[in-house]
Amino acid sequence: MNFKTAIILLGWVILPAGIRAQEIPQEPEEIISPRINDNSSVSFSLMAPQADTVKLVSDFLPPEKVMTRFGVQEGPGSVILEKNENGLWTFTSKPLESELYSFWYLVDGVRVADPNSPYVFRNGSTVTNIFTISGGQADYYENNDVPHGSVSNTWYHSPTLNKDRRLTVYTPPGYESSNESYPVLYLLHGAGGDENSWAAHGRATQIIDNLIAAGKAKPMIVVMPNGNVAQDGGYGYGSEGFQKPTFLPERSMNGEYEAHFKDVITFVEKTYRVKKEKEARAIAGRSMGGFHTMHISRYYENTFDYVGLFSAAVIPREDATGQVYSNMEETLKKQADNGLRLYWIAIGKTDFLFDANVAFRKQLDSLGMTYEYVESEEGHIWKNWRVYLTKFAPRLF
Amino acid sequence: MNFKTAIILLGWVILPAGIRAQEIPQEPEEIISPRINDNSSVSFSLMAPQADTVKLVSDFLPPEKVMTRFGVQEGPGSVILEKNENGLWTFTSKPLESELYSFWYLVDGVRVADPNSPYVFRNGSTVTNIFTISGGQADYYENNDVPHGSVSNTWYHSPTLNKDRRLTVYTPPGYESSNESYPVLYLLHGAGGDENSWAAHGRATQIIDNLIAAGKAKPMIVVMPNGNVAQDGGYGYGSEGFQKPTFLPERSMNGEYEAHFKDVITFVEKTYRVKKEKEARAIAGRSMGGFHTMHISRYYENTFDYVGLFSAAVIPREDATGQVYSNMEETLKKQADNGLRLYWIAIGKTDFLFDANVAFRKQLDSLGMTYEYVESEEGHIWKNWRVYLTKFAPRLF
Repeated sequence: MNFKTAIILLGWVILPAGIRAQEIPQEPEEIISPRINDNSSVSFSLMAPQADTVKLVSDFLPPEKVMTRFGVQEGPGSVILEKNENGLWTFTSKPLESELYSFWYLVDGVRVADPNSPYVFRNGSTVTNIFTISGGQADYYENNDVPHGSVSNTWYHSPTLNKDRRLTVYTPPGYESSNESYPVLYLLHGAGGDENSWAAHGRATQIIDNLIAAGKAKPMIVVMPNGNVAQDGGYGYGSEGFQKPTFLPERSMNGEYEAHFKDVITFVEKTYRVKKEKEARAIAGRSMGGFHTMHISRYYENTFDYVGLFSAAVIPREDATGQVYSNMEETLKKQADNGLRLYWIAIGKTDFLFDANVAFRKQLDSLGMTYEYVESEEGHIWKNWRVYLTKFAPRLF
Repeated sequence: MNFKTAIILLGWVILPAGIRAQEIPQEPEEIISPRINDNSSVSFSLMAPQADTVKLVSDFLPPEKVMTRFGVQEGPGSVILEKNENGLWTFTSKPLESELYSFWYLVDGVRVADPNSPYVFRNGSTVTNIFTISGGQADYYENNDVPHGSVSNTWYHSPTLNKDRRLTVYTPPGYESSNESYPVLYLLHGAGGDENSWAAHGRATQIIDNLIAAGKAKPMIVVMPNGNVAQDGGYGYGSEGFQKPTFLPERSMNGEYEAHFKDVITFVEKTYRVKKEKEARAIAGRSMGGFHTMHISRYYENTFDYVGLFSAAVIPREDATGQVYSNMEETLKKQADNGLRLYWIAIGKTDFLFDANVAFRKQLDSLGMTYEYVESEEGHIWKNWRVYLTKFAPRLF
């Protein structure tokens, strides 16, 4: 066998993807989908000759009210594709702003990732295709030709929880070849997420790489732990195996996470070359991670000089019993009195946590806490959390 | 809003996955698929009331001859699911041996990942669901409650290629807290893969964790570089962005990769605490990575004491022009004469590279190279490469 023949044969290894000629008449690799057009519109194509309806669901389409078990909610919009005589379904969007967009298809009602695009993100229990439109905000989310930090998945021992737990650590470009010590941002995920979420949907490592390269943020270490104390690692990454994910594992918001957080800090400050002063520690989180951030930052006295609440679930707990929640008002007041460099709150106008954040800011006002407040469009979505991080990180250290 | 209400509302955030009540009558989260039954059979369920045919394609089913553009080839088997009156399609397998299996559905001919299981692997251009059957070989592939190493995605500078390139590095449990130096296994991917493949489909980090924990392998560093010199990172991880993957990017097998490999070794030996002797260096690869391994191990004289060819594409190149290929016979002879601790060759009986490996072993015989040869069942599949790694790693260092 010569080399050329072998390469041709090697080719078949990935073909089970779609090449069952009797089932899929057109050769799938001729389809490019999504295709970003010169005018920043996007064309989607899916070969499905036997389907009756193919819908595209995406966050670039006008939001739709959808019926859920919890009532009517706003979700990503949808559109029905057009079928040609070969069974190819297509749709072209209007020109889109620079962003990272997610999408999936509903083929006769079944959720389908685009078989022509392998770029899928998992967030907890769902898998979603993504694409970017360059030339603006999305440039922060792309792997540009700039110096890159390292992204490590490692494990720390928690004496408090009596187990090893997985976390993601970003170290900035040059970390391995220098002796410098760096400040640390602890970046916490929300319900439905895990220690991978900020690096996946959140594009945190690209954002920090790109901000550092542009001289807009200081080199820093970013620590992304797992916020569900019942787990040692996110679903599929820990000893629970490949079980069906639960949206919010038990004990994730009962105070145990905050109480154990000292174990994360101890590990980080022992393992990496980090600065160990209040002014070199930041903490931020989205949704449940904002809840964790608010509590951790007041519970550990004089530990964090920078606090970021992104669409934070700052909601009074009726069932709070943990020590962490026992003196919230008092410790918040102390946090305000001790002073800190930045207490930063951001939320979207249509976020279901908007009112809760209004109430929380009133509480902060009454305690004399100084904070910055950013109100964005839209709601409880990753688009906002990525934007918040690109605004928050340049303010640190 | 109280906490309970908020958690319920938080719930909707992941629901766009499937909860469009008007489209999907049964609540998707009640479906567990795949479900591993007590007798190690597996039940698959997919809600698709409007579909005419739902097929399951998986490597546990009897292999099928499928028509591809390259002629008839053997691929994973398939079975048609049974539809009940609610539109739920189901299939239960016979009891399965302990293994890691992959699968997908064809819903009216469209490739579909199981919407009830977020455990998907990407290998180059395809996305595949996976599950494991515990209690045997698959125990090496699971995240067990044992000490874990760290898995880092980092970047090295290649002066030869004049660019920064991404690679995956596994450091063993205890690396961060010790001053010890470790031996290094360079583990190379095949065509269609990238620097993520061995850690994803290959389960290399779980395999090494579990072998070390069982006392069957020595603590080692495992370096998984990107074998396509045209890329700085795998598709979606480098500056090429989210473009349509090519199975084999240009220049991947023209000698440039082997010629630049000194840059990988230099980076690793400068950046990590590694032993720098021949006896502390191993190199192995699958398919194209076996081709790279064979050439690198003879081209760099007296550099590697352990060489592993897993289903290696050891094929004479008609178009070879690079310096690397100019004196293959001579350098192979020299490698044999210099001696090494282990030259290990494994291939499956139905692998399309079987004959090429017979020819290559004859060549080694004629040059006086001592090697070990392992012949397995089946062909050019990840199942074999994972098994080969569990056999090869214990022989190192």
